[in-house]
Amino acid sequence: MFVNIQIKLTEVAASVETMLKKYFEGTTGELAEAMQYSLLGGGKRIRAFLTVSFAEMFGGTVEQAMPFACALEMIHAYSLIHDDLPAMDNDDMRRGKPSCHKQYGEATALLAGDSLLTMAFDVCASNTYVSDRSVRLAVKSLAMLAGHLGMCGGQEIDLAESVASYEELKHLHALKTGALIKAACLLGLYAATDDPEANTVSAISKYAEALGLAFQIHDDILDVTSDSETLGKPVGSDAKNDKKTALSYMSLDEAVVEEDAVTRRAVEAISEFPDSDVPAQLAVWLMSRKN
Amino acid sequence: MFVNIQIKLTEVAASVETMLKKYFEGTTGELAEAMQYSLLGGGKRIRAFLTVSFAEMFGGTVEQAMPFACALEMIHAYSLIHDDLPAMDNDDMRRGKPSCHKQYGEATALLAGDSLLTMAFDVCASNTYVSDRSVRLAVKSLAMLAGHLGMCGGQEIDLAESVASYEELKHLHALKTGALIKAACLLGLYAATDDPEANTVSAISKYAEALGLAFQIHDDILDVTSDSETLGKPVGSDAKNDKKTALSYMSLDEAVVEEDAVTRRAVEAISEFPDSDVPAQLAVWLMSRKN
Repeated sequence: MFVNIQIKLTEVAASVETMLKKYFEGTTGELAEAMQYSLLGGGKRIRAFLTVSFAEMFGGTVEQAMPFACALEMIHAYSLIHDDLPAMDNDDMRRGKPSCHKQYGEATALLAGDSLLTMAFDVCASNTYVSDRSVRLAVKSLAMLAGHLGMCGGQEIDLAESVASYEELKHLHALKTGALIKAACLLGLYAATDDPEANTVSAISKYAEALGLAFQIHDDILDVTSDSETLGKPVGSDAKNDKKTALSYMSLDEAVVEEDAVTRRAVEAISEFPDSDVPAQLAVWLMSRKN
Repeated sequence: MFVNIQIKLTEVAASVETMLKKYFEGTTGELAEAMQYSLLGGGKRIRAFLTVSFAEMFGGTVEQAMPFACALEMIHAYSLIHDDLPAMDNDDMRRGKPSCHKQYGEATALLAGDSLLTMAFDVCASNTYVSDRSVRLAVKSLAMLAGHLGMCGGQEIDLAESVASYEELKHLHALKTGALIKAACLLGLYAATDDPEANTVSAISKYAEALGLAFQIHDDILDVTSDSETLGKPVGSDAKNDKKTALSYMSLDEAVVEEDAVTRRAVEAISEFPDSDVPAQLAVWLMSRKN
C-alpha cells in the first residue's frame, strides 16, 4: 500500500500539537509558559509519528497511541532545552527562535526541562485508553531508554569528546538519539498490546536502531551538502565545532551508500509483519528529507 | 503502641541504602558515579520512611514499598543536585561534601539529576511486588506531585522571590517540599492497595500537608536556635540570604506554638486508622529533631 508519508506526518503533527496544548489548559505562570514555548509549534514530530504508526501496525488506535506519542515529544523537548543550556552545548537559537534559557533565563529553562520530563510520565500513566499493564510497559521502556543507560548516557559520552572510531560514534548515537526513537516505536507497540511477543519487541528494536543510525547519517550528510536556508540552521556547523560525524570516517559517497544500506536493514527488520508499510515507507522517505 | 522512631528510621535508611546501591550494580562511568555520589550515603530518608510506614499501615509489606521508597529518594536527590547548580541556588556544599557540580562539573551534574529523575520512574515501573494498577497510580501521583504543578512549581515560585505573606509562604512550601512528602505517603498506600478509598487518599493528603508544613517550620526554628555543629550547616543562613521563613511573619514563641498545632493536625488527620502509630509518632518525633 502506498502511503503519502509527508501528508500523514503533517496530520499526526497537527493532532499531537492539539493534544499537547490541551495538557496545559488552565495552567498559568512563567514555568508552564516556558514549557510550552519549547514544546509547541516546532519539529517534525517523527517520534510521535513512530508511536502512532507502530500502534496502528499492531491493531491499536490513534487514541491509544496519542498520550504515549505526546510523552515522547515532551522528553524530546526537555532534552533539547537542557542540551542548549550554557553548561552543555550553549546554543542561543533553536528552531529559528531564542532557545528556552535565552527567553526565560537559565533557572526557569532548567525547571521547564525537569517539568517536561516529569510530565511525560504523568501523561503516560494517565492514558485511559490502554490497560494498566500497557502503562507499566510504556513507563519502564521510556524511563530505561531516556535515562543514564540510554539518552542521558549518550549525552555524557558526547560531552567527553572521546569518540575515536566509527563504531564508537555509532554507539554514541545509538544512545543519544537512537534510544528515544526505539522508545517511540516500542510505546506504539505497547499502546496496541500489553502482551507483546519477544520476537516482535526484538524486530522493532532492530528497525529503530537502524532508523536512528540512518537518520543521523542523513543529518551528517545534510550538514555538508545543504544550504542554511533549506536546512533552517547554519550548514558546516559540525566541522566548525570539530564534531565527529559519519563523514569523519568515510567519504560523502560512502556515507550515501551506508545510509541506503542501513535504511534497507530497517525495512527488512519489520518486513515479516503484514502491516509494516507506514514505518517502512517512513524509513525510505527520511532518506529524501531536506532538513 | 510505642515505636522507637529513631531506631526504625535507621533501619529503613539502611535497607534503602542497600537497595539503592543494588540498582547501580554493573554500571560504570562518570555519569552513574555522579548519580550515586549524590544519592547514596546521606540524608535521613524521611520520604522513604513515610512510604514504608504507610504501606505497612495499610497491610502492605516492606518489599512492596521499597521500590517506591527508593524512587522517592531518587527524586529528592535529583532535586538537590539541580537546586545546587549555579543557575539556581549556587551551593558549593551539600551534606558536608562538595555539591555534585563542584565534584563532577555542571554538565555531568545536570545529566545526573535528569538521570535520577528518569530512573525513579523506571524503578516504580519495575516494582514486581505490586499490581500493574498500583504502578499506574504510583507513577501518576509521583509525576504530578514532582512536576510543574508540584515540586518544580514550588521551585519557580521560590526563584521569583515574590512571597508577600505567611499564606503565600505556606503555598510555596506546600509545593516545594510538601508535594514530595505527599507523594511519599500516597505511594506507600498504593504499594499496599491498588483500589484505595477516596477518603483514605484525602486523609493521607491532609497528614502529608500538615507534616510538610511542620517540617518546614522546624527547619526555620533550627536556623535561628541551633548551632552550626549540631545542624551540620551554617545557622542564620535564612536571614543572611534574605529568605522569607515562618519567622518573617511570627515570633519564635509563636512559631513553636504553630509547629505544635500543625503537628497535631497531622496526627489528627490519620487518627481514624487503627494502625497509624508509626506515622503519628514520626510527626511528633520530627518536632524534637536537632538537624
